Amino acid sequence: MTYASDLAEWAHGIAYDDLPDDVVQATKFRILDVIGLSLAGLGTPFGQSVREAALAMNGGGPARLFGTGEKAGVTTAAMANGAFSQAMEYDDTHNTSIVHMSGPSVAAALALAEVEAVSGRDLILAIAIGSEIACRIGSVAPGQFHRRGFHPTGLFSPFGCTYLAGRLLGLSPVEMANAAGIVGSFAAGLLECWVDGTQSKYLHPGWAAQSGIAAAYLGKTGTTGPAAVFEGRFGLIASHLQDAELAKDFDRITRGLGSEWVTRKASFKPFPAAHVIHPYLDAILKLRSDHRIDPAGVEEIIVPVAPFILPIVCEPAEEKRRPNTDSHGRVSMQYSLAEALHQGRLGKDAYGREALDNPEIQALTDRVTIVPDESFPGPERFKGAVEIRMKDGAIYAHVEEHNRGSAENPMTRDEILGKFDENSADFLSPDRRSALIARVEGLEGLDAARGVTDLAIG
Amino acid sequence: MTYASDLAEWAHGIAYDDLPDDVVQATKFRILDVIGLSLAGLGTPFGQSVREAALAMNGGGPARLFGTGEKAGVTTAAMANGAFSQAMEYDDTHNTSIVHMSGPSVAAALALAEVEAVSGRDLILAIAIGSEIACRIGSVAPGQFHRRGFHPTGLFSPFGCTYLAGRLLGLSPVEMANAAGIVGSFAAGLLECWVDGTQSKYLHPGWAAQSGIAAAYLGKTGTTGPAAVFEGRFGLIASHLQDAELAKDFDRITRGLGSEWVTRKASFKPFPAAHVIHPYLDAILKLRSDHRIDPAGVEEIIVPVAPFILPIVCEPAEEKRRPNTDSHGRVSMQYSLAEALHQGRLGKDAYGREALDNPEIQALTDRVTIVPDESFPGPERFKGAVEIRMKDGAIYAHVEEHNRGSAENPMTRDEILGKFDENSADFLSPDRRSALIARVEGLEGLDAARGVTDLAIG
Repeated sequence: MTYASDLAEWAHGIAYDDLPDDVVQATKFRILDVIGLSLAGLGTPFGQSVREAALAMNGGGPARLFGTGEKAGVTTAAMANGAFSQAMEYDDTHNTSIVHMSGPSVAAALALAEVEAVSGRDLILAIAIGSEIACRIGSVAPGQFHRRGFHPTGLFSPFGCTYLAGRLLGLSPVEMANAAGIVGSFAAGLLECWVDGTQSKYLHPGWAAQSGIAAAYLGKTGTTGPAAVFEGRFGLIASHLQDAELAKDFDRITRGLGSEWVTRKASFKPFPAAHVIHPYLDAILKLRSDHRIDPAGVEEIIVPVAPFILPIVCEPAEEKRRPNTDSHGRVSMQYSLAEALHQGRLGKDAYGREALDNPEIQALTDRVTIVPDESFPGPERFKGAVEIRMKDGAIYAHVEEHNRGSAENPMTRDEILGKFDENSADFLSPDRRSALIARVEGLEGLDAARGVTDLAIG
Repeated sequence: MTYASDLAEWAHGIAYDDLPDDVVQATKFRILDVIGLSLAGLGTPFGQSVREAALAMNGGGPARLFGTGEKAGVTTAAMANGAFSQAMEYDDTHNTSIVHMSGPSVAAALALAEVEAVSGRDLILAIAIGSEIACRIGSVAPGQFHRRGFHPTGLFSPFGCTYLAGRLLGLSPVEMANAAGIVGSFAAGLLECWVDGTQSKYLHPGWAAQSGIAAAYLGKTGTTGPAAVFEGRFGLIASHLQDAELAKDFDRITRGLGSEWVTRKASFKPFPAAHVIHPYLDAILKLRSDHRIDPAGVEEIIVPVAPFILPIVCEPAEEKRRPNTDSHGRVSMQYSLAEALHQGRLGKDAYGREALDNPEIQALTDRVTIVPDESFPGPERFKGAVEIRMKDGAIYAHVEEHNRGSAENPMTRDEILGKFDENSADFLSPDRRSALIARVEGLEGLDAARGVTDLAIG
């Protein structure tokens, strides 16, 4: 047996009734969150580009794009809808693996629901399976992929989507394991775009959804893929880490599968910024509010960070202090803290051109001092702390032990629905938004899951 | 300027009349070779699986599959036709980079010719551009990717196909460089399938074609990708090699671009086996023929090899001596030499179940002794040598300095057309084959390149 075949047995055998209630509930919230984010993303220049490209390369199929209802092939609609969901760096993340698992899963499952008989329960189960598997694979060597230039969502979500699609397409365990072997050859995602603030990373959830669907169809029709796609000598982990010492914990892929749900350790996002920055944003906004801080009076902002996040969001400092674009800013600790402190918020409209060019915000980025701190936790937990030293000598400090949106510091239902409402407002009427919320909250009673997409179109 | 933008300027500016005559001629042969291989591949179980999967996931679009003429979306037809071309490990290879550049290029260009105004000259030029670029990128660190488990065709052909598609879709140089940055996130391909003889690698040329077309459409509609996708700190080479010492020669990407055509160093294949095995096959078949060797009298077959090919086709010995499947056998030095010596040939019908299970052939694999030999050339040149020691004490030895099919030891037009005829015979009538040969040999006079596909359908 291999890890791929163990996962296949599980994904093939699990029933809806095996899902814990809290996993069902979280999955519904994640579906709503992703649809809202996809609609907000569709409204960005990036989203419009992806929409146009999808229709040009493969328009006219049976699957619909969110928001517009325009038709494309199944894989292409999944690609576009998944890409929309990342356009503002605002989608949920599994803390340990830093995989954005929900965008790919929701996009893939709803695209397949356009052409297959998929009930509401099937949809919930498939998304729960796909997200769980992506996060587990990404947990073999947490923090090691980003530093090498690989984006975990790009590498691991294709596998989640493959099992998800395999389940919805009725693959046998053998076919599903072959499909996982196949998708090892489609799993990719570079982070070089973080160096210059370009957009390619936002495509990763969509490409993952497309890859997983394609691999599942190929596995179903008989193409074979390597059995040891994860643990083999030329497998995913060995090739991408090139350091056997770092990949000793393959058992994290399957340990406790079905009883421990690792997606419980995933976080929703209250800010459209890289997730490791979130507890720092919570901290600085609390300090600003509690002490009515005037940004003009700030002398220094001291930010202790776990070493693993340095190459992700703190370095090189000159890039992070003067982001070129919104996507560049969303992965900058220095800039994000500066805009939040200056504006007193960091919402859907953050990282605009005016803010990026604002000399007062730019001056604040130069006052941020990053301090590597080994006492901060690894990627399993996002902790943040900020100390603000004022020109008048006052010092204010706050520690956030857990990012808001995490299991330990959860967002409320009202907060999640409020985020959905704000994100979807440009494409859906208030009545349509209420109807979609009600449909997803009652999803286990829906006969045809494509009814969700029916209401995700303006 | 970056390497991606330099390539974009070149791919945008070059005209058909800038192509040297021999590059035009070789490109025509490569088109014919790929179509023949795709038809042969379509006839395999792998090919039938890919065909079924393509039609299931995205049937009914404007582009046709070779052989059957069934319709699919542009990206999906390119994926399927490109995958067919590799199904027998029989397609051409650029010696230095070990990139199979023609399958992806031909599949991508002919798929785009289904929906765009593409003349015969446009087709030749685009394929020449795409193949040249893929081979150049793969030449930055020859031999280093296979050993890490990455397949060069999977990593580098997506870039070639992006520039090719960018040219056919009329992208500006800026859009084309963005598209190259984007496709860095789609470039992938594991070699774990070589460990157990599964088929995923055969998908790589098709996935590369699909990826390049998608990236070009995305670049054209405004999505941005990283400028330093090759040389950046999180770029393709740094992330996949993780060793700056090995990637010092980035200038190979652009040095002499347009005057030195590196595809001149590509080889056609007379055998359906991994390319580095070819000169050894030439040698052993020559020895067998010259000395009328009886396989039953062979004591030992001594095979000196360059160290870089050991992990590709020689090790681990137990796997290579008892391949599970045809795909496993095609990348085994020991098995390929044994079947060739036993059968006296290694043609389209090689690596069948009967041969794989033949105890006489299996016994011969155990008589192969691999000897690492530093004096053998690196991946720039495929040299082979075989010494056969007979039980009666006779010793026969032969050295092939260059594989047959290479620039230094070329296949003749008759050999290339004969290979095409044999490969396409199951799908095309003799008249249709002759008509297709004539059309491709006169391709510069064809108004609509889709006329090539018209004749590649039975």
